[in-house]
Amino acid sequence: MNKKAIGMFDSGCGGLTVLKKYMKLMPNEDFIYFGDTAHLPYGDKSPEKIIEYCEEIVKFLISKDVKMIIIACGTASATAYEYLKNKYDIEIRNIITPTASTLTDKNIGVIATKATIKSKAWKKAIHSFNPTANITSVACPLFVPIIEECLIENEGTSYFVKEYINKLNIKSSNISSIVLGCTHYPLLKQQIQNEVGANVRLIDIGEISAKDSLNYLIANDLQNTPEHIGTIELFASDDFESFKENAKNIGFTI
Amino acid sequence: MNKKAIGMFDSGCGGLTVLKKYMKLMPNEDFIYFGDTAHLPYGDKSPEKIIEYCEEIVKFLISKDVKMIIIACGTASATAYEYLKNKYDIEIRNIITPTASTLTDKNIGVIATKATIKSKAWKKAIHSFNPTANITSVACPLFVPIIEECLIENEGTSYFVKEYINKLNIKSSNISSIVLGCTHYPLLKQQIQNEVGANVRLIDIGEISAKDSLNYLIANDLQNTPEHIGTIELFASDDFESFKENAKNIGFTI
Repeated sequence: MNKKAIGMFDSGCGGLTVLKKYMKLMPNEDFIYFGDTAHLPYGDKSPEKIIEYCEEIVKFLISKDVKMIIIACGTASATAYEYLKNKYDIEIRNIITPTASTLTDKNIGVIATKATIKSKAWKKAIHSFNPTANITSVACPLFVPIIEECLIENEGTSYFVKEYINKLNIKSSNISSIVLGCTHYPLLKQQIQNEVGANVRLIDIGEISAKDSLNYLIANDLQNTPEHIGTIELFASDDFESFKENAKNIGFTI
Repeated sequence: MNKKAIGMFDSGCGGLTVLKKYMKLMPNEDFIYFGDTAHLPYGDKSPEKIIEYCEEIVKFLISKDVKMIIIACGTASATAYEYLKNKYDIEIRNIITPTASTLTDKNIGVIATKATIKSKAWKKAIHSFNPTANITSVACPLFVPIIEECLIENEGTSYFVKEYINKLNIKSSNISSIVLGCTHYPLLKQQIQNEVGANVRLIDIGEISAKDSLNYLIANDLQNTPEHIGTIELFASDDFESFKENAKNIGFTI
């Protein structure tokens, strides 16, 4: 048993969709979430800068005495995870590996932000577990602004979903699973599922990350007590008001 | 007569739509354009940082011996213009004042990026010339990614144009002119015009800026010679290849 909180961070509020999955699966755990709003988006920063920012956050979360740290951000997972894991003693988990290690499909689609696709992080991670998988990657740069602007229900959204999904060539590439490789994308899951059809599995990386972390806590006897009611504490490095507003827009009421 | 080039800068390639209007109106002038791709987008930076970045560019353009400098960026015009104008002897013009000074309408709409709307720069500038104007401002954060992703022709775009234009309440607010307050927006002019109808005037700030600068050159006898064929020189502070690609996406072939 361990009553310490779980630390989690992202460049902004996208990681809150991951936090939601954790809260659902681990209602007895406390969480400390840090949104690095002073430096978002990470996607257009150099690896050196991203590592510098993430290290500051890791130090902050360690000062808060958390029992493990989840990098709930694709770009930070791709860029800073190795460095941080090697430098700090605390258990640090990224958002890519847990999903990549479970994918046994022959033909896999990955959709994510431009920066994440460009980093090839998903391709490398999936191939390290499943070396012969054919991976088709498509960047969907309009999805994050559509979600953050609360335009999911706008009729136009379905046309853009179609535009990006077409680029995956699902039928001719025989794709059976698509990784929703950005923490915002689960909010568009229904629209994407409508476009790809019921036979293609959409992978929610937050859900898999939560299961992975729960397994780690159980294996190491680090769970909080069953009678404890979990709490959350949120921090943002800049403009907490607009962080709250964006959080609300992605369905996370503070 | 003055054979020196005209300097122009933006955080990225959006200002190239302004440069196009200048080239059309002043085919005898040489232009040096600087896209600050290392620091884009300016919209999420602090005023201090934006001023610092812009000052570096101004120094660079002065070192290139230009005869005047155009800030072809809404955010930089709103943030850094006053500082630069007061500090440097060279003629510096921003992208907001020339348009603001021509608007005599009673009811004016302004559409722009989130950062530009939040800065209230257009409101302040228009009111300084037309103090009783009623100004309705709407941020259209999806327009820049739609344009840069070459999705202007996608059927979904018309729905998002409708979404944002509805927020202007053109009829009930009796709006007769709408400022396209972001340098990318002229590329969506047709779609916006379809939505607002032929009776509402859409203001192209690049066109007005070009006329304003031409008047300045004429008044000060600074035009190049009529037999000279104008040239352009482009600089970017990071990743010239993706600058070129984005420039192509907004219809500017290099």
